Amino acid sequence: MTSLFSPGVQQTLDLIGIFVFALSGGLLAVRKNMDIFGICVLAEATALGGGVMRDLLIGATPPAAFSNLGYFVTPLVAGLVVFFLHPEVERINRAVQTLDALGLGLFCVTGTVKAHDYGLGSVASVALGMLTAAGGGVIRDVLAMEPPSLLRWDREIYAVPALVGATMVAALIAVGRLTTLTASSAALIAFVLRMFALKYGWRAPRAWHRNGSRTSEE
Amino acid sequence: MTSLFSPGVQQTLDLIGIFVFALSGGLLAVRKNMDIFGICVLAEATALGGGVMRDLLIGATPPAAFSNLGYFVTPLVAGLVVFFLHPEVERINRAVQTLDALGLGLFCVTGTVKAHDYGLGSVASVALGMLTAAGGGVIRDVLAMEPPSLLRWDREIYAVPALVGATMVAALIAVGRLTTLTASSAALIAFVLRMFALKYGWRAPRAWHRNGSRTSEE
Amino acid sequence: MTSLFSPGVQQTLDLIGIFVFALSGGLLAVRKNMDIFGICVLAEATALGGGVMRDLLIGATPPAAFSNLGYFVTPLVAGLVVFFLHPEVERINRAVQTLDALGLGLFCVTGTVKAHDYGLGSVASVALGMLTAAGGGVIRDVLAMEPPSLLRWDREIYAVPALVGATMVAALIAVGRLTTLTASSAALIAFVLRMFALKYGWRAPRAWHRNGSRTSEE
Repeated sequence: MTSLFSPGVQQTLDLIGIFVFALSGGLLAVRKNMDIFGICVLAEATALGGGVMRDLLIGATPPAAFSNLGYFVTPLVAGLVVFFLHPEVERINRAVQTLDALGLGLFCVTGTVKAHDYGLGSVASVALGMLTAAGGGVIRDVLAMEPPSLLRWDREIYAVPALVGATMVAALIAVGRLTTLTASSAALIAFVLRMFALKYGWRAPRAWHRNGSRTSEE
Repeated sequence: MTSLFSPGVQQTLDLIGIFVFALSGGLLAVRKNMDIFGICVLAEATALGGGVMRDLLIGATPPAAFSNLGYFVTPLVAGLVVFFLHPEVERINRAVQTLDALGLGLFCVTGTVKAHDYGLGSVASVALGMLTAAGGGVIRDVLAMEPPSLLRWDREIYAVPALVGATMVAALIAVGRLTTLTASSAALIAFVLRMFALKYGWRAPRAWHRNGSRTSEE
Repeated sequence: MTSLFSPGVQQTLDLIGIFVFALSGGLLAVRKNMDIFGICVLAEATALGGGVMRDLLIGATPPAAFSNLGYFVTPLVAGLVVFFLHPEVERINRAVQTLDALGLGLFCVTGTVKAHDYGLGSVASVALGMLTAAGGGVIRDVLAMEPPSLLRWDREIYAVPALVGATMVAALIAVGRLTTLTASSAALIAFVLRMFALKYGWRAPRAWHRNGSRTSEE
C-alpha cells in the first residue's frame, strides 16, 4: 500500500476529516428534528459512507470503517457534540465549512491512492477518489430526504475541487511523482478551490433552455 | 461458523423473521398505491436488505439471500399475501408488530454473530447486528420516499432494542459465554424492550433547542 | 465465462445500452434543473448502477464498470449530449424509449448469464438479471428524489419484460440450450414486450381496496 504520510499523521488527518463530515451529518439530522439515534446514524453515514462504498467497489472488505475502531467511534463523538452543542456548532459554521473543505481535499487524495493501490486504472481511481470525498454527503441527503446538495445547481461546486485533486493524484501516479509533498499539494489545491467556490459563490452551469423556455424553478 | 441453533431451527426462525419484515414492506407498498410488482420488490428489499448489506460489508458474497432459495422466495409469498389480503393483514397489525419485534430480536443476534464469525471486532459486529435488524426498513422507506421511520423522533425506539441485544451478544462472545441459551436471552431482551417501547410509547430524546427556539415541526 | 457474442459485438451492444440508459438519467437531471455535474452523475448512476450492484452481489470486484474504460466514459458522453442537446433528445423521445427497451432486453439477458457464471442458482440469477436491467433506474430516481418509476402503478410495466427475458435465459441454461441465437431471442422477447407495454399502456394490477375503500391517489 502506498504510504503518503506516517501512519500516525495519516490516522490523525483521517479522523479530523471524519469528525467534520460527521458534524455536517449530525447538523442536518438536528435540522430534520431527528432524535439522538438519528443524529448518530446520519453522522456515521456521512462520515464513513464514501469510504465504505469505495472499499466495497474495490473489494477491500471489511471496509476500513469497520476494522478501525477510531473511524467508527469518531462519528459517534461528533454526534454527541452536535446533540449537546448544536447551536454552538451552527454558530461556527464558517470554521466547520473550512474543515469540511479540508476533509474534501484529504479524502479525494487518499481515496484515489487507495483505489490505485487495489489495481484500478486512472479514470476509475479518480472516480473513486471523488466518491470517497463526496459519497457520504449524498447518502446523508438521501436518508434525510433532501435533494442531494452535490447535485443541486444552486450550491457552490463541491465535486469539481475533488475532481481536480483526484485527477492531479492520478497524473502524479502515472508519471511516478506521487510523494507526500505532491499529494499534499493536490489536497491543498482541492481545499483552496472549494474555499474559493464558497467565497465567490462558484456554481456549475446548467443545461440551457433555449427559446425562452427556462424552467420555472429559476 | 457459530451455530446457535440446529440448522432446522435456525432456518425456521430466519424465515419467520423474513416473512414478517416482508409484510411490513408489502403493506407500505399498498399504502403507497404500488402495483403487485412494487409490493414484491418492497417486500424483498425490506426482508433481505439488512442481511444483504451486512454480507456485502463482511465480504460474504453472494449474500445468503441469493444462495438460499427459501430466503428469496419467502418475501414473494408475503408479497402475495399482502396483495390479496392486505385489509386482513392491516387488521392484525398488533400481531404483525409483535412478530416484527421477534424478527428484530432474532436478526440483531444472528447478525452480530455472523459479523464476528467473519473476523470483525466487537463494536463493528454490534453495528452490523443493528444493520441486519434495521437496515431493511431503511431501504424500504427510501424506496417508498418516506422519511426513514428509524430516524424519526416521533416513532417508538427501534434501534435501541437492537443495540441492547447486539451488545449483549458481543459481550457474551468476549467472555466466551455465547450459547443457545444466552443468545436466545439476548434476542428475548431485545424483543421485550421493543414491545415495551410500543406499549409505552418510548422515544429517544432529540437535541434540545435552547432559548425557546424549538423547531416548528413540533 | 459464457460468451454469447464475439467480444466486439458484446462490447458494442453493452455500450449502446449504457449510452441510452445514461440519456434517461441525464434527461431527468435536466428536468430537475441540475447542473452539468449532476447531469453526468445521474447519467453514470443510471447507466452503470444496475450492473455495479450485480457485480457487488456476486463478488465480482472491481465491477466491470470500473475496469472497462469504455463503460465509464460512455455515460459522460451521453451526459454532454444531454447538456448541449436536451431539447433535441427530448424530441426523439420515442427513439430513446425504443433504445431503452433494447437495453432492457440486452441487460436482463447478460445480467442473468453473468450471475449464473458466478455460481448463483436459477432464481437468484433471474433476480440479478432484473436488477442489472432495472436497478440503475431506481438509483436514478432515488438520487433525483422521484418515486421510483419502476414501483409506480401508473407506469407501463418495465420489470415484467425483464422478468420474462431473464427467466427464459435461466430455463435455457437449465436445459443446456443457451446459444447466441436463443439468448438473442430472449432479449428480443423482452424488448418486444416492453414496446407493447408502451404502445398499449400495459400496467400491473394493484392490490384492490375492497368495500369502496380505494385510496385517494386515484
